[in-house]
Amino acid sequence: MTSTDATRPTSDPTADLPLLIRAAKGLSVERTPVWFMRQAGRSLPEYRALREGTAMLDACRDPDMVTEITLQPVRRHGVDAAIFFSDIVVPLAAAGIDLDIVPGVGPVVAAPIRDRAAVEAFPELAAEQVSNIAQAVRQTVSELNGTPLIGFAGAPFTLASYLVEGGPSKNHEHAKTLMYGDPVTWNLLCAKLARIATTYLRVQIEAGARAVQLFDSWVGALSRPDYVRFVQPHSAAVLAGVADLDVPRIHFGVGTGELLTSMGEAGADVVGVDFRLTLDEANERLGGRYPLQGNLDPALLFAPWEPLERSIDAILEAGKSAPGHIFNLGHGVLPATDPDVITRVVQRVHSRSSR
Amino acid sequence: MTSTDATRPTSDPTADLPLLIRAAKGLSVERTPVWFMRQAGRSLPEYRALREGTAMLDACRDPDMVTEITLQPVRRHGVDAAIFFSDIVVPLAAAGIDLDIVPGVGPVVAAPIRDRAAVEAFPELAAEQVSNIAQAVRQTVSELNGTPLIGFAGAPFTLASYLVEGGPSKNHEHAKTLMYGDPVTWNLLCAKLARIATTYLRVQIEAGARAVQLFDSWVGALSRPDYVRFVQPHSAAVLAGVADLDVPRIHFGVGTGELLTSMGEAGADVVGVDFRLTLDEANERLGGRYPLQGNLDPALLFAPWEPLERSIDAILEAGKSAPGHIFNLGHGVLPATDPDVITRVVQRVHSRSSR
Repeated sequence: MTSTDATRPTSDPTADLPLLIRAAKGLSVERTPVWFMRQAGRSLPEYRALREGTAMLDACRDPDMVTEITLQPVRRHGVDAAIFFSDIVVPLAAAGIDLDIVPGVGPVVAAPIRDRAAVEAFPELAAEQVSNIAQAVRQTVSELNGTPLIGFAGAPFTLASYLVEGGPSKNHEHAKTLMYGDPVTWNLLCAKLARIATTYLRVQIEAGARAVQLFDSWVGALSRPDYVRFVQPHSAAVLAGVADLDVPRIHFGVGTGELLTSMGEAGADVVGVDFRLTLDEANERLGGRYPLQGNLDPALLFAPWEPLERSIDAILEAGKSAPGHIFNLGHGVLPATDPDVITRVVQRVHSRSSR
Repeated sequence: MTSTDATRPTSDPTADLPLLIRAAKGLSVERTPVWFMRQAGRSLPEYRALREGTAMLDACRDPDMVTEITLQPVRRHGVDAAIFFSDIVVPLAAAGIDLDIVPGVGPVVAAPIRDRAAVEAFPELAAEQVSNIAQAVRQTVSELNGTPLIGFAGAPFTLASYLVEGGPSKNHEHAKTLMYGDPVTWNLLCAKLARIATTYLRVQIEAGARAVQLFDSWVGALSRPDYVRFVQPHSAAVLAGVADLDVPRIHFGVGTGELLTSMGEAGADVVGVDFRLTLDEANERLGGRYPLQGNLDPALLFAPWEPLERSIDAILEAGKSAPGHIFNLGHGVLPATDPDVITRVVQRVHSRSSR
C-alpha cells in the first residue's frame, strides 16, 4: 500500500471547503463562521467616501466599485464571507423596469405594476443584461483570496411588493389587494419575478459565488396560510432553479417566526432567523432539519459591550442546537452602527465559538 | 312560592352584560361582537371634517370633540363597542412632557429621555391632570345608549420607545440601548410609565369605560426572553393596577406571535392577535386559556369583497376554538380605508356569527 493509497480512503473531499460552506452543509467546523447582512455599505466610512457623488444604482452597475465595496468589510472586520454589494432591484432595472433607489426612501418604481396588462408587459431578464454583474462577481472572487462570496436576490414576494406598491410600504395594501383580489395576475407576476431572481442568482453562482441568499425581507407581513398559498411556490421555484449548481441556499426574511417551517420547505439549505426568536426555539420549530443563520439584534450593536457580549455568547450557545450555525445579525447592519463594534463582534465569535 | 321567588334562583346576573363584555369574560353570546382598532378617526370623512383646523392633541383634550369622534363609527358602522378617541401619549402630555403629535409622523418628544437624570426628573400623573379625559368619558358613555366604551392606554414598552427614541422608530435602537445598557434606569422609567398608564386607565374606568385595552404596539420588536425580562413586569403592573375595578383587560401588540403566552400571563383577560397568526393557532399556543380578539388583516379591507368575505368567515370559524372571540382587525384601520367596507364587514360578522 503506497502512502497515496493509504490516505485516499480516509481523505475528506469536503476538507478544503470554506468554513461558511461547511456550516451551511451541516459539516463539522472548528469555529462558527460569521458575516453580517449589510456589512458592505452604509455603516463604513470608506464606503461613504467611495460612493460620494455616485448614485446607488450606478454604483451597483460598476464592477470596480462593486468589487471594492464588497471587499471593504472583509478587510476591515475579517468576516468569513463577503456578501455581494448590490440591491434586490438591480435585476429589475437591468430587465428594463424604470425605477430608482432614492436616498432615505429606497426603491421607487416609476409606474407601479397593478393590473394584468402591466404584468403581461413585464419583461424577462436575459443573463446578458447583467453581464456587468457577472464581471463584478468574477473580479470580486479573484480578489477575495478564498473567502467565499455570497450572491443574493430578492424573493418574488418582496420584489412584487416594491413593484405593486411603487416603493417601500409598511402595510403592503396594494400588493395584498392584488394577491387576494386577482390571484391569477399575482401568480403571473411572481412567476416572472421568480425567473428573474433565478437568472440573477445563476449568473452570480456561475461567476463564482459559493453560496446564495434569497431575501424575502417583507414576507413577515403575511400569515402562514397566505404565505403557503401565494408565495411559497414562487420562492420554491427560485430555490429549485439553482439546485443543480450545488451551492448552499440561505433563505431569510424579517419577522418570519410563524413562517420558518414553510420557508425551509420552500427548498432552503440554511434558514435565516431574525432576532425575535432564539435559535434553539427556531431549531425546535424546524425539527432540527436545517443549519441556521442568525440572529443578533442589530440594535444591540448600539448597546454597551457587556450585554452585547452576553448576547453573542448566548446566540453561539443556542446555535449549537442546530445541525449548523452561521453567525449573523437578525436583520441588516443599521447605518449609524460603529464599525469598530462590528469588528469586535467578529473577534468575539472567532474566539468563543470552537465547536 | 311567588313568581318572584320562582325566577330568582335561575336568573343570570350576567344576562344584561353587553355582548363585548360577555365575549371578553368567555360567557355564551348569541353572536360575535365586533369593533375595530382605530375605527374612530382618520378613515371617516365626518372625522376629517370635524378635525379641520384642530391639532390632534387639542382634539384629544376637548371633551365635546372626543365624544363626537368616539360616537361617529358607532353610528355609522353599528359596531358593538366604542373605542375612546385619544392617543397613547395624551397622559404623558398631561403629566407635563413636552411633546406633539405631528401629522404624517406621529408623536415627537422635544427632549428624548435617555439617561438616569432625565428618568428621575420624569413626572408622575395625578388623576386631576386628566379630569378633561374623565369628563369626555362620562359624556361619551351617556350618549352611547348602552354600547360599551373601551378605554385604553399605551403599555410601558411602547411609551418608553417613543420617549427614548424621541418619536416613532423602526428599530428602537435607543430604547434597546437603554434597556440592555442600563436596565436599572430602564426599569425606573418603565415603572413610572406603568403608574401613568394605570392612573390613565383607572380614570377612564371610573368615568364609565366598561373594558380597557392596553396597547403595546411596538413590543413585537423584542424576543420573548427580553420581553419577559424587561417588559412583562411593567405591563403586569398596569394590568394588576386595574384588577380591582373588574372590567375586562384586553392586551394587544403587533407582530407578537412569539410573545402571546407571555402577554397573556402579564395579566390579560383577552389576548389580541395580529393577522400573522390564525386564531386557532393562537388559541393553541395560549393553551385555550383566553378569549381572543382579532384578527383581520387591515390591508384586506382594500381587496375585493369575495376574498374579504372568505377571510371574515374563516376568522369567525377559527375564533370558535377559543373560549371567547371579539372580532377585530389584526392592526388599526388604515387611513385610506373605504368606510363602507368597514360597515359591510360589521354586517357580515353580525349575520354570520351566531354561536
